[in-house]
Amino acid sequence: MNLKELVGLESAKYVKDGMIVGLGTGSTAYYMVKELGRRVKEEGLNIIGVVTSLKTEEHALELGIPLKAIDDVDHVDLVIDGADEISSDFHGIKGGGAALLFEKIVATYSNEVIWIVDESKVVDQLGKFPLPVEVVPFGSENLFRHFQDKGYHPGWRRTENGEILTTDGGHYIIDLNLEVIEDPHALADELDQTVGVVEHGLFLDMIARVIVGTPDGPKTIEVP
Amino acid sequence: MNLKELVGLESAKYVKDGMIVGLGTGSTAYYMVKELGRRVKEEGLNIIGVVTSLKTEEHALELGIPLKAIDDVDHVDLVIDGADEISSDFHGIKGGGAALLFEKIVATYSNEVIWIVDESKVVDQLGKFPLPVEVVPFGSENLFRHFQDKGYHPGWRRTENGEILTTDGGHYIIDLNLEVIEDPHALADELDQTVGVVEHGLFLDMIARVIVGTPDGPKTIEVP
Repeated sequence: MNLKELVGLESAKYVKDGMIVGLGTGSTAYYMVKELGRRVKEEGLNIIGVVTSLKTEEHALELGIPLKAIDDVDHVDLVIDGADEISSDFHGIKGGGAALLFEKIVATYSNEVIWIVDESKVVDQLGKFPLPVEVVPFGSENLFRHFQDKGYHPGWRRTENGEILTTDGGHYIIDLNLEVIEDPHALADELDQTVGVVEHGLFLDMIARVIVGTPDGPKTIEVP
Repeated sequence: MNLKELVGLESAKYVKDGMIVGLGTGSTAYYMVKELGRRVKEEGLNIIGVVTSLKTEEHALELGIPLKAIDDVDHVDLVIDGADEISSDFHGIKGGGAALLFEKIVATYSNEVIWIVDESKVVDQLGKFPLPVEVVPFGSENLFRHFQDKGYHPGWRRTENGEILTTDGGHYIIDLNLEVIEDPHALADELDQTVGVVEHGLFLDMIARVIVGTPDGPKTIEVP
């Protein structure tokens, strides 16, 4: 098993019978969803899944995990999701898989959030990973120039065919190549207030627990 | 002529040859657009219009006003638009016509903003007019409950058929029935930071000039 698979399996242990579970998106979350599918099928685990992307929805349906839409539940007990970077003070960047908007919405309505990552994602300071910003297509060329003027080195998220990618929510993504984010809260506030920004990939003060894949096995860290 | 028509005509005087002009949406902006169409046709006025809604686009095309998309210009010289409320300190509520997102984006990239209203829109304090909030459909039932819990008395914006309205940007609108907004900047910050909110109808610190229709004729106020 690879590190991603090991942390995926480990995280699934936190899912108990009767829970409404937010199912994250990405290569690590994939193994968690797969394991939950196995437990539903083989152990009769009784859960309801709430997906964070069309891609995860497809996977969960294949596995026979019962699903509800986020708007058909009034809360989520636990969401398990990957992250692209986690800082030493447990803030994160998400959105490498282009699902940041739905991931953040599901996390917002969840009582608990667990992130699962391999150890390459753990960093001192955020910013090496390009920060995804989901934007309204109308006006987005102007917004792109605004980010250029700010020195944020923006790039359009593109599909494999080179076209500008459209998210599940119908928006575009502009990735900011910042290298270092000195003050994540200040940047989050600034982006929140920027007209045309729907959401950004800074996930701050959000997690209860992170499970890191290391060569010695999964290491679970409780966030103080 | 009614008050709306008079202020629409008056505001069009600020449009000069060669300008890129943001064309607002709504019943007052309608008359401004109509007058610009007349000047283009009869006086050879040379402008480029940038629309703030599909509805205004249709109207401007009928009139033969040359148009460019917001992303095909690198700035706008002047936007003229209506407003649903203007406070004595020149902040406003917009979005009664469901075009607030595109209106705010065009205003953001405009060098100057003029609002045109009849005098019934001028108030001491904002909030009597329900504050429109444009939201991501995914998770919006949960967001609606969040606004209920905050005591904001939310209501869904609906079409004439009673269905939830979808904006030009593909989102929903939740109207907040607040009665009085004590601190518009604080509320704007809160809504900006609320996950699932795309944009809100508080337009603060934005206008250079407001033209108010009164029984004595249009009254132009320069914002200090």
